[in-house]
Amino acid sequence: MEITKKDLIRYQERKFPKNINFHPIGVIHSPFTNLKGIPIQPSFSDAKGKIEIFKQYQAGLKDLEGFSHVICLYFFDLVKMPVPLQSKPFLTDEIKGVFGTRTPFRPNPIGLSILEIINIHTTIINVNNLDILDKTPTIDIKPYVPRFDHRETDKIGWLKGNIRKKTS
Amino acid sequence: MEITKKDLIRYQERKFPKNINFHPIGVIHSPFTNLKGIPIQPSFSDAKGKIEIFKQYQAGLKDLEGFSHVICLYFFDLVKMPVPLQSKPFLTDEIKGVFGTRTPFRPNPIGLSILEIINIHTTIINVNNLDILDKTPTIDIKPYVPRFDHRETDKIGWLKGNIRKKTS
Repeated sequence: MEITKKDLIRYQERKFPKNINFHPIGVIHSPFTNLKGIPIQPSFSDAKGKIEIFKQYQAGLKDLEGFSHVICLYFFDLVKMPVPLQSKPFLTDEIKGVFGTRTPFRPNPIGLSILEIINIHTTIINVNNLDILDKTPTIDIKPYVPRFDHRETDKIGWLKGNIRKKTS
Repeated sequence: MEITKKDLIRYQERKFPKNINFHPIGVIHSPFTNLKGIPIQPSFSDAKGKIEIFKQYQAGLKDLEGFSHVICLYFFDLVKMPVPLQSKPFLTDEIKGVFGTRTPFRPNPIGLSILEIINIHTTIINVNNLDILDKTPTIDIKPYVPRFDHRETDKIGWLKGNIRKKTS
């Protein structure tokens, strides 16, 4: 179907939201069943597992299999609110601002992992490079597209010289 | 401060959520004040604007300025629920599954844009490459780090041969 104006809230009725309500579209099945020993980034992991998309969203998976990687957005459901705005992230002993780090302890605890697609069967995306706790709720899946998502840069702030393979 | 066990929900008390509640951490100020003519990706845009982080989150911006780009997550607040699971995205006339596209019309309408940081003053991140509607609520800001976020690939499914500069 074609998206038309009726699929949009009228601009005149737009109101800045206080709360935003999302719902899990699936669940991640991972070998990491507790919080110790999880790789801190997908690029440091060769752990395999599955993203299970709930049955009612299965039609949305059409055409994903042609891509090499998915951008998986998920909810760090074990994070207690409120979080500190400054704390020590994994890769340094210094206190950093939350928006200058990739810590899970964020005001909206959303995780982002780019995972290699092994294959897709019905509602299951088999993936590689997992850095996510087992049973974590997924909230979105997008195809990874270098022309959209890659930037050439070596300006990486406090991470310069601090990136190394590490687990939680 | 250091994150400790007390900042986590106990694993034994974990329950899979039905709903996930987030709240805006800021608002995007963009030259695009209506839905026509917005570049469909940041990599096709040289529009400048601001991410305003709300005052209460300002301390979280510490250490972000050293990075060249932010990953900005935001809420497509004009999208009406429910969305179709298959529809025609911007870059083809064929019907595609939502998780195989980057359409805003998603079950959880979360946008992801990688934006160049021009500079940061108090609560304002001045950015380049905007592809976002004015007054859009931001839900997270993460530093872009190629070692974490880049994958070398040319396997881009139906987008192969279909990527071109386009506006909404």
